[in-house]
Amino acid sequence: DIPLTKKVHELALSLDEIEKGGYPHFMLKEIFEQPRAVADCLRGRLNVENHSVQLGGLTDVIDRLAAADRLIIAGCGTSWHAGLVGEYLFEHLARLPVEVEYASEFRYREPLISEDDVMLVISQSGETADTLAALRTAKEHGALALGVCNVVGSTIARDTDAGVYTHAGPEIGVASTKAFTTQVSVLVMMAILLGQKRGTIDKEYAARLIRELNDIPGKIEKILDQSDSVKRMAELFTYAPNFLYLGRTYNFPVALEGALKLKEISYIHAEGYPAAEMKHGPIALIDAMMPVVVIAATDHTNDKMISNIEEVKARKGRIIAITGAENKEVIDLAEFSCPIPETEDCLSPLLTSIPLQLLSYYIAVNRGCDVDQPRNLAKSVTVE
Amino acid sequence: DIPLTKKVHELALSLDEIEKGGYPHFMLKEIFEQPRAVADCLRGRLNVENHSVQLGGLTDVIDRLAAADRLIIAGCGTSWHAGLVGEYLFEHLARLPVEVEYASEFRYREPLISEDDVMLVISQSGETADTLAALRTAKEHGALALGVCNVVGSTIARDTDAGVYTHAGPEIGVASTKAFTTQVSVLVMMAILLGQKRGTIDKEYAARLIRELNDIPGKIEKILDQSDSVKRMAELFTYAPNFLYLGRTYNFPVALEGALKLKEISYIHAEGYPAAEMKHGPIALIDAMMPVVVIAATDHTNDKMISNIEEVKARKGRIIAITGAENKEVIDLAEFSCPIPETEDCLSPLLTSIPLQLLSYYIAVNRGCDVDQPRNLAKSVTVE
Repeated sequence: DIPLTKKVHELALSLDEIEKGGYPHFMLKEIFEQPRAVADCLRGRLNVENHSVQLGGLTDVIDRLAAADRLIIAGCGTSWHAGLVGEYLFEHLARLPVEVEYASEFRYREPLISEDDVMLVISQSGETADTLAALRTAKEHGALALGVCNVVGSTIARDTDAGVYTHAGPEIGVASTKAFTTQVSVLVMMAILLGQKRGTIDKEYAARLIRELNDIPGKIEKILDQSDSVKRMAELFTYAPNFLYLGRTYNFPVALEGALKLKEISYIHAEGYPAAEMKHGPIALIDAMMPVVVIAATDHTNDKMISNIEEVKARKGRIIAITGAENKEVIDLAEFSCPIPETEDCLSPLLTSIPLQLLSYYIAVNRGCDVDQPRNLAKSVTVE
Repeated sequence: DIPLTKKVHELALSLDEIEKGGYPHFMLKEIFEQPRAVADCLRGRLNVENHSVQLGGLTDVIDRLAAADRLIIAGCGTSWHAGLVGEYLFEHLARLPVEVEYASEFRYREPLISEDDVMLVISQSGETADTLAALRTAKEHGALALGVCNVVGSTIARDTDAGVYTHAGPEIGVASTKAFTTQVSVLVMMAILLGQKRGTIDKEYAARLIRELNDIPGKIEKILDQSDSVKRMAELFTYAPNFLYLGRTYNFPVALEGALKLKEISYIHAEGYPAAEMKHGPIALIDAMMPVVVIAATDHTNDKMISNIEEVKARKGRIIAITGAENKEVIDLAEFSCPIPETEDCLSPLLTSIPLQLLSYYIAVNRGCDVDQPRNLAKSVTVE
């Protein structure tokens, strides 16, 4: 019998580090949490067997929503980008005219909104000052007010007529990541539900979308598995003084969002554009010092994207392509590419946004930036 | 009687120089032509005595236009910016819901547009490929198709149901200047006409707007008289690597347009934003190396602009203000300011855009750029 000597091993971890779950920054933790966050967002809401979507928060208002003349979506920053994806989704799936507004601009106009319209406000925190003001304005005009937010019991959750939580879990990093993908997930579900209600989406397509949406968390996981290759690429672009991001249709807002991430945490001036607008001015900026990120994940605009890529290359711009693994033509033209698993066009923002988050993260780390607390920024903007 | 000896003085001018009217570049000539170009655009269309607007090209369609459910405006580049100003104008003066679309994005969606809607396309040349495609799509859906273009007999002029010419005269410089101000002038006249037809604008206000619009050419002249001070300011910002432009309401599109000018001809990465969005990301870019152009010409958002300026200054950003001479508070906060004659808020883009054109011009000249033929750009984009 050998007597046991107890040994206390003190863990060299602060509470802060434990909360980061072993990741060096909250942002990276939250990027890697997205398969779980999106799955939580979808849980109990998708029925793959009977091809249906249940959003309990909308039950009482779904008839009024389905009968609306117009949907107005308002938000700021990343939530505004999610709203732009929403515009394409609702117009495509529910054939409902959508107008997306900067909350700050909407509130200072005499907005044209009535009881036949629906206002949908989007905010991670549910406390964004300009978004709350837009919500109040819409309610004064008698519009049905819906909210998409993450924080349970927030002002937006309380002050809207109905809404859907994103259930992403707490987001600590100032640069939104899982907030965006879960907001888009909610908008996809809302658009399918509304399309079914309005009879604008055929059964088979709805079934396919629901199945595909259900597979999104696994596909995000696959993209995250390749994070090392994004990390290596980030090393090559650490000193880039500027960036352009180009997308079309569903991925035009992703271009804006990718550029915003880089601005926010690496302080590199990056700008997003709908790809065709490049020829109307921004192409003058392109030379060997201007990397261009091209998000080419929409089938029917692929040819146009290829000619945009050729134009950039002719001016010695360097191309990073976010595209499907099967899109050989784009991959061959690009200097670097991040392959994205195949999915339906309208779900692609849920995948294409992931490598852009990683790219901005690794570049910011290389530049020695304080990723979780970027200079000048607050997590939720509660001032006007 | 002294015999006369004929002497032939050969002018050291090429045909090219004569066409430039003594200006070193077409762009500068066209900037300085704006009092005349806008006056030509207004001529015979404004009746200051009986407070009316006559737009012959719209006579046959005005009833259908006044009864429209929705106006969709499509364009590219500078014309898209004019369209954004149009959105604020039509919503304010005619209380008609407006949706502004990038022509290139509109055409690749299955757009929601019907015979109850009106499509208004804007293009200087009348030949912009994506804009023509958007026009065709709208016509296929039965919408009334209107055009605003400069070139008489162009495809857009021929293929629309009705329209209004800008009468700006030939624009040779690749960077649009007088095209923008005359497009906005046309949109103001259309919005007043439609407001009167729809009974959404009161008599006194319409009379005041028409009087003020009639005074715009003289006020542009006054701004041009101060071009030397913009020139001196441009010297100080010649080496700036980046620029931000901030505006609100009518001057948010002017911020986009000012930034586009700088991109196009000086190859400086400049970006426009609605001022309130700055806090949602772009403020991370601001330090002593980031000049910020603030367009503060709208009364009811002035307080908010002042706090935006204070936020920029707290991060050591340098402020150039485009604002009314009476706006002491903004002028005192700014490092530089370009005073703008007083006018109605909704007409202010016709004035605030002028110093931004001059600023981009002088910076580009200082940087040795080929102002009239910037790299990579074509005057009219007739490819998709």
